Amino acid sequence: MIIIGEKINGSIPSVAKAIAAKDGDAIRRLAEKQSQAGAAFIDVCASVPGEAEMEALAWLIGLVQEVSDVPISIDSPQAAHCAQAIGLCKKPGLINSVSGEGDKIRQVFPVIADTPWQCIALLCDDLGIPKTVEQRIAVFERILEQAAVYKIAPNRLYIDPLVEMLCTAEEGITLVSDTIKTVRERYEDIHIIGAASNVSFNLPARKYVNQGFLVLAMQAGMDSVILDPLNKDIQGLIYATEALLGQDDFCIEYIGAFREGRFGK
Amino acid sequence: MIIIGEKINGSIPSVAKAIAAKDGDAIRRLAEKQSQAGAAFIDVCASVPGEAEMEALAWLIGLVQEVSDVPISIDSPQAAHCAQAIGLCKKPGLINSVSGEGDKIRQVFPVIADTPWQCIALLCDDLGIPKTVEQRIAVFERILEQAAVYKIAPNRLYIDPLVEMLCTAEEGITLVSDTIKTVRERYEDIHIIGAASNVSFNLPARKYVNQGFLVLAMQAGMDSVILDPLNKDIQGLIYATEALLGQDDFCIEYIGAFREGRFGK
Repeated sequence: MIIIGEKINGSIPSVAKAIAAKDGDAIRRLAEKQSQAGAAFIDVCASVPGEAEMEALAWLIGLVQEVSDVPISIDSPQAAHCAQAIGLCKKPGLINSVSGEGDKIRQVFPVIADTPWQCIALLCDDLGIPKTVEQRIAVFERILEQAAVYKIAPNRLYIDPLVEMLCTAEEGITLVSDTIKTVRERYEDIHIIGAASNVSFNLPARKYVNQGFLVLAMQAGMDSVILDPLNKDIQGLIYATEALLGQDDFCIEYIGAFREGRFGK
Repeated sequence: MIIIGEKINGSIPSVAKAIAAKDGDAIRRLAEKQSQAGAAFIDVCASVPGEAEMEALAWLIGLVQEVSDVPISIDSPQAAHCAQAIGLCKKPGLINSVSGEGDKIRQVFPVIADTPWQCIALLCDDLGIPKTVEQRIAVFERILEQAAVYKIAPNRLYIDPLVEMLCTAEEGITLVSDTIKTVRERYEDIHIIGAASNVSFNLPARKYVNQGFLVLAMQAGMDSVILDPLNKDIQGLIYATEALLGQDDFCIEYIGAFREGRFGK
């Protein structure tokens, strides 16, 4: 599994405080810890409105790069800021994110076309989040068409099928799980990503719902996830599920990760 | 999920000690706690060799019935003792277990034929544990034929596909998962059971492997499990997985179980 570390996000109160107070040490610590915990990307989301976001993003990206050489995941609702922040990164990373909405794709795809940058693409568009698998796959196909125009290969894309709240769902996670399976059937080497903790929104004891979702989504074909890499219980479950799914012969990776202290005591 | 409480088992050192010392209170406590935690059956396994087993089983069953009206799961490698212990139980329960081995089926099926007793059937025979899905299904078909002879309906059978150690498996749990799916496809209302903790034998941090297995096996069609019902983490994960799989509309059961204290704080 490819883990995108989610801890540097201005929507988390302690991080918002660090951004407001220009507390660089707090940000550097979060970057270091997530790198050590095996994050493949460190997500950087300022959650600051308007134009001030760009300044905050630049500050955060600079701090992360002072202490870590893990690639950055540039996380902004403003596609133009994502595209602009590429120039601040020392190595190619991940854009988080585009979708079928507005001109997001036109703002980002041309900029990353001839680079090794990768990109998360959400399966929604100007009509919102589609209610059926077929409609989500239709958005997916349109995004793939655009990617082809800019010669962005499927293996540079992270498709986010959009995980919704379980508490208002009628058939469990069937919709998202079928979307994942369909995307995986079409492209063996495309990435499929999820924000695992959305599923448990508004429910008590959320960790159980998150755990179950992670296992089922991995079984359906999800290969990357945005989460807290410092959560050892989740790391243990991910390594275990890879072994159970036959992706880790004789549990060699599982045992290795345990010995490195990724999970367990 | 149908949970068979596993804690009264002479292979657990503290229980062996209680049996040897005739410590009835210890056994009664285990029965009470498992009943309160929602076990559908309380497994009773003496793990005492030879003929002395029958006496120990009788003592254990008597103690459980003093404090609980949850049905008993009579657990013995000796099918004759399973059949004999039926007479000690106040209400119909579960035989744990028969298989394609020797004359186990002939010892048990005639005795439960005209009763509401249910029975666990392991998919192995005199040749051992089959190495392929097809061979396990062949054992399954032979057991079902025998059940039909005695008019034991599929919904009175708990098929155990035999969960093996992950650490020596080559393709994760594909074999057991495909066996579960095939059995489920053939009979919608048959029960499929597993001893979930076998999968993590010889691995470190076993709980993660057990957790992942449980979710994947439930997804494949397993509807019952032998485990420790006092483990709140497992209870939480089971309720969450049922909701994720669309078996609990709007998470009503999940939220109810949380409020009753089955899991969570």
